Amino acid sequence: MDKFRVLEIKQSVFENNDHQANLLREELKAKKTFLLNLMSSPGSGKTSVLTKLINELKDDLRIGVMEADIDSDVDAHTISQTGAKVIQLHTGGMCHLDADMTRQGLEGLGTENLDMVILENVGNLVCPAEFDTGASKNAMILSVPEGDDKPLKYPLMFSIVDVLLINKIDVLPYFEFDLDTCCERVRKLNPKVKIIPVSARTGEGIDEFADWLRNEVKKWNEG
Amino acid sequence: MDKFRVLEIKQSVFENNDHQANLLREELKAKKTFLLNLMSSPGSGKTSVLTKLINELKDDLRIGVMEADIDSDVDAHTISQTGAKVIQLHTGGMCHLDADMTRQGLEGLGTENLDMVILENVGNLVCPAEFDTGASKNAMILSVPEGDDKPLKYPLMFSIVDVLLINKIDVLPYFEFDLDTCCERVRKLNPKVKIIPVSARTGEGIDEFADWLRNEVKKWNEG
Repeated sequence: MDKFRVLEIKQSVFENNDHQANLLREELKAKKTFLLNLMSSPGSGKTSVLTKLINELKDDLRIGVMEADIDSDVDAHTISQTGAKVIQLHTGGMCHLDADMTRQGLEGLGTENLDMVILENVGNLVCPAEFDTGASKNAMILSVPEGDDKPLKYPLMFSIVDVLLINKIDVLPYFEFDLDTCCERVRKLNPKVKIIPVSARTGEGIDEFADWLRNEVKKWNEG
Repeated sequence: MDKFRVLEIKQSVFENNDHQANLLREELKAKKTFLLNLMSSPGSGKTSVLTKLINELKDDLRIGVMEADIDSDVDAHTISQTGAKVIQLHTGGMCHLDADMTRQGLEGLGTENLDMVILENVGNLVCPAEFDTGASKNAMILSVPEGDDKPLKYPLMFSIVDVLLINKIDVLPYFEFDLDTCCERVRKLNPKVKIIPVSARTGEGIDEFADWLRNEVKKWNEG
């Protein structure tokens, strides 16, 4: 039996999301809980990457996962098999989470005894980019089959992330995807972004993402 | 030189979108203009499918295309090379088009002398499903790399479409995608949907989609 709660998220009542996000970030910092907001299109491999990542990190960090979806539980079932603490958040049709909705999720999950919480945001490159969730760091996955033109089409998303995973690099030979061109387009929008090519299928690059996260969690707790 | 206009779409003032959508549909019917609303995730191949489709249909039907994007013109450049009449719609951050926004696009494009207009909606499986654009028919593309679990995760989108293209079937051998399972999941949500496996790269299945459209346009003009 999978063990996770399903929480129906309520629409936020706060008008100033940036203020709520900053408040939440300060509280998480004080509690030494690192929150990673993970965004992508549907089907880019968020859940598969998370499964591999949790296996890589679970001996070092106590990890919780919040799975945000319109109304399914598919991903929470998958992630609960890693042994991580999981909660399923139902957005009731809403295409993103803001800081207050993220706070509802964290309260539902319970963050005592967790070093890191990962929010798997709703699959969408538009709306989640517009709302600060209060996360410590923002991550995005772009997968090879989606095409190397995505930074041109969804510039806001690419410009707000701290780390970009380019997933499904095991199928690069079968797609017209130019990794260098893609990285150039991303860096033009976001010169400081960390880009890590990965394959959730083969595991390639997941160790580098895990190292980056270990280091960010360390800085979060010291800073 | 590409020849297309760029139109900045204004947020709708109408509260009752369903009413506006029905009005628009009736007007289009009276003018014998068929409107196809094409939806999908980012990177599923809407523009590549359209390019092949237009080449297949352009001797039979006079086609216009409205490219809706947050703020880029990449797809309008591509489509304008097919010779179809093209307009780029900028949604200014909005993640969908409703009926009034679609009407603004149609007015900008100019539908006199067009038999069919195709709206390439914003790449997103959530928001576009919630707004009737006034289209004659709704189409969706799911691509193989996105995974066969997408009907479980985005049920509304799959339940409102008249035709579903499953694109990138040329890469089926490289992905764990079960076509039968996927179709079963879709039919459970939407028993009447027409499902067509296609490959925009090889051209496979595009003729079947073109035939389906020719027939729908004929019914629209007769009905």
